[in-house]
Amino acid sequence: MTTQQLIDQIRIKKSFLCVGLDVDLGKIPKHLLTLEDPIFEFNKAIIDATHDLVVSYKPNTAFYEAYGLKGWTSLQKTIEYINENYPDIFTIADAKRGDIGNTSTMYAKAFFEDLKFDSVTVAPYMGKDSVEPFLAFENKHTIMLALTSNEGAFDFQTLQTNQQELYKQVLETSKTWKNSSNLMYVVGATKAEYFTEVRKIVPDSFLLVPGVGAQGGSLSEVCKYGMNDSIGLLINSSRGIIYASNGIDFAQTAREEALKIQQEMNAILDAKL
Amino acid sequence: MTTQQLIDQIRIKKSFLCVGLDVDLGKIPKHLLTLEDPIFEFNKAIIDATHDLVVSYKPNTAFYEAYGLKGWTSLQKTIEYINENYPDIFTIADAKRGDIGNTSTMYAKAFFEDLKFDSVTVAPYMGKDSVEPFLAFENKHTIMLALTSNEGAFDFQTLQTNQQELYKQVLETSKTWKNSSNLMYVVGATKAEYFTEVRKIVPDSFLLVPGVGAQGGSLSEVCKYGMNDSIGLLINSSRGIIYASNGIDFAQTAREEALKIQQEMNAILDAKL
Repeated sequence: MTTQQLIDQIRIKKSFLCVGLDVDLGKIPKHLLTLEDPIFEFNKAIIDATHDLVVSYKPNTAFYEAYGLKGWTSLQKTIEYINENYPDIFTIADAKRGDIGNTSTMYAKAFFEDLKFDSVTVAPYMGKDSVEPFLAFENKHTIMLALTSNEGAFDFQTLQTNQQELYKQVLETSKTWKNSSNLMYVVGATKAEYFTEVRKIVPDSFLLVPGVGAQGGSLSEVCKYGMNDSIGLLINSSRGIIYASNGIDFAQTAREEALKIQQEMNAILDAKL
Repeated sequence: MTTQQLIDQIRIKKSFLCVGLDVDLGKIPKHLLTLEDPIFEFNKAIIDATHDLVVSYKPNTAFYEAYGLKGWTSLQKTIEYINENYPDIFTIADAKRGDIGNTSTMYAKAFFEDLKFDSVTVAPYMGKDSVEPFLAFENKHTIMLALTSNEGAFDFQTLQTNQQELYKQVLETSKTWKNSSNLMYVVGATKAEYFTEVRKIVPDSFLLVPGVGAQGGSLSEVCKYGMNDSIGLLINSSRGIIYASNGIDFAQTAREEALKIQQEMNAILDAKL
């Protein structure tokens, strides 16, 4: 999917919501556990119930790897299901990968070619040659960690370096990499005041924003400081939507929660136009 | 495996060699490609031919994920084969993971509980709560990126921060984390002069050292500056050993290459005692 197609979808659906498919067998409705592939069945129901309200789904690979081969099978079935039934969806493999050049190429193949995701999240610590292999894929997107939503973000990301805080230097440096137009960035919602700083460096890039809802971030604040003329934001919610109920009605309740956020987004988009 | 058991194995085998199992179907001997699981068969042959010369094997997960479900199956068979047949081996999942707390817990379960690796590599960018979940596992080891062997290492890792270069700050800060005694660190051999600096901060920790051989690092230089009283080094070689031949004799040739390095290590250990 191209960036323009993603922007078009946001305008059509009046939504820039991404739903995180972080499926924990301990948290999903009990009645699914007797099925052959409970994780896939859970995802399928959530996707069928919410796809018209969201522009993106983001499975976090950790939750699938934790269940070994069965988990990897569930991940594969989930991405295939989305690609076959809802090709209008922008898919994100939340994998936070990054390794030396030839190894990053293998990761890029895993997520872009084998699993056919539109995008993958990567970590910046190993620098240019750990990220550029991902950027080489046409119409695929690489979403690099800049400023994350967790407590540990303040351990290193906000350290003052020679010129500026580390996360700003990461943003700045990444713009010099080959095919950097394929970059998006993770910026946590729990730090809304930082969006002004981020936008000074990457005014045009899409930002994937975790931390709204469960982690305390405010949608309106993030939009106020982070939105650009092409919207430029994908707001992620995971637990607040997919675990809104663990009864028989879980998919319908997930839809209701997604709808609340989509309506808020609709109002923000209307006010902007 | 405990750290003491690892040190014992180094003394018994007179080796601190780790072999990276980065298996690329384009590089392994053609005659294996007709078998049902060429990657596993390749690994099995390499392991059988070298296990008495090495203390550790390190599959890099990227090379398995690139082949999807089949690749993940090969990884699982490989770790099971090592654990069943060579319990004296210290196993490393080179995965470079790291995410917010509850997600890192899922990764830790994947590698420590499901696959039963002794250790896993992690990335530091997300800080304390992204690494501590790995440290909570007893007799398991978390190998954090400090200073890597690639060109991109100089993008961020050596940036001057308030107090010191970023990689030093990463080392320093990590020592304050809960169960930090379960930490080891990745330090690339291509920068031997940095080992003196690293040892000032983490004198007792084991260092996993990529970059000897193919990437140009020198074993004797690394040992000179990086070795401590408990040896404290695991030197990785991947391509130089596993792809030494791509003929029928590949396993025997891999053994010969491993033996050369083991003999060099033997001499270094003898000189030290």
